[in-house]
Amino acid sequence: MKPEHSRAFSVASFSDREPTISSTALDRWALGRIQAFVPKARLRLALWDGFSLVPRTGPAVGTITVKNRRTLWSWIRDPELNFGESYMSGSAEVHGDLVSVLAEVYRALPRAAHTPAWWRAVNDLRTSKKNVHHHYDLGNEFYRLWLDQDMVYTCAYFPTPEASLEAAQSAKMDLVCRKLRLKAGERVVEAGCGWGSLALFMARRYGVTVRAFNISSEQLAYARDRARREGLDHLVEFVEDDYRGIRGDYDVFVSVGMLEHVGLPSYAALGEVIHRAISPEGRGLLHFIGRNQPSSLNAWIRKRIFPGAYPPVLREVFERVLEPHSFSVLDVENLRLHYAKTLEHWRTRFEAASETLSAMFDAAFLRAWRLYLAGSEASFITGSMQLFQVVFARGDSNAIPWTRVSG
Amino acid sequence: MKPEHSRAFSVASFSDREPTISSTALDRWALGRIQAFVPKARLRLALWDGFSLVPRTGPAVGTITVKNRRTLWSWIRDPELNFGESYMSGSAEVHGDLVSVLAEVYRALPRAAHTPAWWRAVNDLRTSKKNVHHHYDLGNEFYRLWLDQDMVYTCAYFPTPEASLEAAQSAKMDLVCRKLRLKAGERVVEAGCGWGSLALFMARRYGVTVRAFNISSEQLAYARDRARREGLDHLVEFVEDDYRGIRGDYDVFVSVGMLEHVGLPSYAALGEVIHRAISPEGRGLLHFIGRNQPSSLNAWIRKRIFPGAYPPVLREVFERVLEPHSFSVLDVENLRLHYAKTLEHWRTRFEAASETLSAMFDAAFLRAWRLYLAGSEASFITGSMQLFQVVFARGDSNAIPWTRVSG
Repeated sequence: MKPEHSRAFSVASFSDREPTISSTALDRWALGRIQAFVPKARLRLALWDGFSLVPRTGPAVGTITVKNRRTLWSWIRDPELNFGESYMSGSAEVHGDLVSVLAEVYRALPRAAHTPAWWRAVNDLRTSKKNVHHHYDLGNEFYRLWLDQDMVYTCAYFPTPEASLEAAQSAKMDLVCRKLRLKAGERVVEAGCGWGSLALFMARRYGVTVRAFNISSEQLAYARDRARREGLDHLVEFVEDDYRGIRGDYDVFVSVGMLEHVGLPSYAALGEVIHRAISPEGRGLLHFIGRNQPSSLNAWIRKRIFPGAYPPVLREVFERVLEPHSFSVLDVENLRLHYAKTLEHWRTRFEAASETLSAMFDAAFLRAWRLYLAGSEASFITGSMQLFQVVFARGDSNAIPWTRVSG
Repeated sequence: MKPEHSRAFSVASFSDREPTISSTALDRWALGRIQAFVPKARLRLALWDGFSLVPRTGPAVGTITVKNRRTLWSWIRDPELNFGESYMSGSAEVHGDLVSVLAEVYRALPRAAHTPAWWRAVNDLRTSKKNVHHHYDLGNEFYRLWLDQDMVYTCAYFPTPEASLEAAQSAKMDLVCRKLRLKAGERVVEAGCGWGSLALFMARRYGVTVRAFNISSEQLAYARDRARREGLDHLVEFVEDDYRGIRGDYDVFVSVGMLEHVGLPSYAALGEVIHRAISPEGRGLLHFIGRNQPSSLNAWIRKRIFPGAYPPVLREVFERVLEPHSFSVLDVENLRLHYAKTLEHWRTRFEAASETLSAMFDAAFLRAWRLYLAGSEASFITGSMQLFQVVFARGDSNAIPWTRVSG
């Protein structure tokens, strides 16, 4: 693990020792306050000395144990941040299926504020670079252990729930290409291309040329190497630059899994980029994690996993990215359950690789990633997060499909 | 024609006489001002005495002739309202294909305001009743002359552009049912049911029970009669009431072609109605005319054709109807070109029935309807208006489709 990433996951203490001191009446009162915060969660809440509260409704699906007094009171101060912090450090433990326990918590939390809680991270060029580096430059070896063989780190499309992850990622890429009606020879620009799998897929299967932008240097090195090995480097150019650096004329704009890292204050800039980039008969596709109601991302996920990220509601994207240029929304599909299934595959592979991962990373890092993967799966299962694919075209273009495709 | 409708279309004068006075330099200057308002329109603009301006760009697709001075100056004062008024009264004439001429105007108009032009018609119960009566109670005989045999007065779905109107309306109703995954025995509530075709289709083909609401008494009389004749009145109940009067528990909420008459200030009330009406695994579909950018409906259309109407942008619907109740957008499809094709069919049948229509209605009424049908077709062709179908479900329901349907 690289030093800067070790720092990001460093914790004040890593403790799985059981304190010998008994809980007091005040500690037990605090645990009651925490239960009151998620009153309908079917969870047993336990303290370090064995004292526990049973669920108010139905049998427990699992137990959350607080292993010392300092952790207990940190939850009273800031439960959203400190549950994750203490799970990561080992000063809280979950017994039972982690996804089911987290799903209980998500379902029991008060509904997202009716008064929008805007998340105002301003991701300028430097911050964006730092944020992307934090997550995506963890080392290709790390991701290779639990992603599919194509290294696609976005929601897959499962023609049936039983499809393999490999088949589902391929089906997702093909669905994106068919929604965009790619024709051989067309010019595509991709914003945020990961390890290059979609760019290479479009060139290989649909014969288009692609300029693919990314600011993760580790991902780009991998993508360029792959393009050369596959003999596709005459069709696909990988550019190390921010989406704001996109220049040139294209038939198609595509971005899969980047918008959630852009942040609301930069949506207008993204709209300008698309407007400048695509031709009079141009069209585009945005694939992103979103919400049903505006709400900032969990504080712990922002701190440890995705700095600067914000999953928008559709209208925020429409109002700020598409409307100013009179782009026309042609097609929206919500693939929420497909992301829950994708995350189930990733998590299963992650757990299967735990021995290898333990030799590469420290315990806090792996516990953080376990919590992030399980928590994400729980949030798609409970409907706390959505996955939207939006197809759009210029408002005055009649070069649009007569009927739409389906998976 | 009923007296109250005659009044709605009465005009100060109906003149197709050519005034003998010549146009002045000032008249010609005014015509130049009008041309400057739509500088790129490939139209010849002519005055009553033969003076004309040729298009600044390319050959003319048609000619608009102003037949007297008063009309000319009324266009300077309020072109949006008075072009329609003068076409209706016969004091302006169009030579060339009416749809093509109007499409030239739409394309040449300045893009809808980037600063939203909110349309604030408050349609309370009494106003809604009056607005609906104005348009939908013109007599079933009138609509029978140019709608399909099922009397479906909303955008059809053409599996191919060559499909007949009858086939396309049937395909649209089936598409709506399949998007909603109707199962036999389910309870459906329909808001704004027209002449009852969709309600009867759902009961006949999918075996669901339907309560269908409408405030047009002429449409309801027709629909109830049809239900009895088809022996479907045990499955379909037609209720003469506003959508705000919907009570009871349903699996499905559906509304095809009503939202554009609701008006923004009532969207929150509509959201409440849906929230109250549908079950925990409930879902719904909204089919409506919309826009890419917020803009009020043409002033003449509002005055003569659709009082109180407002075609929204998607985000206005999402923010005001769906978000407050955390409904989840599952699927959006834009059928803009299908509405252009639908209107082409209606207009063709309308013109074919002109002899019968002339015996029933006065000239101003028929010219108003010709302008409305051609103008609507032009606005869908040019992308000035959109047709959205939005499928949604409760945000925490996992009883949602794994994959979507297509036409």
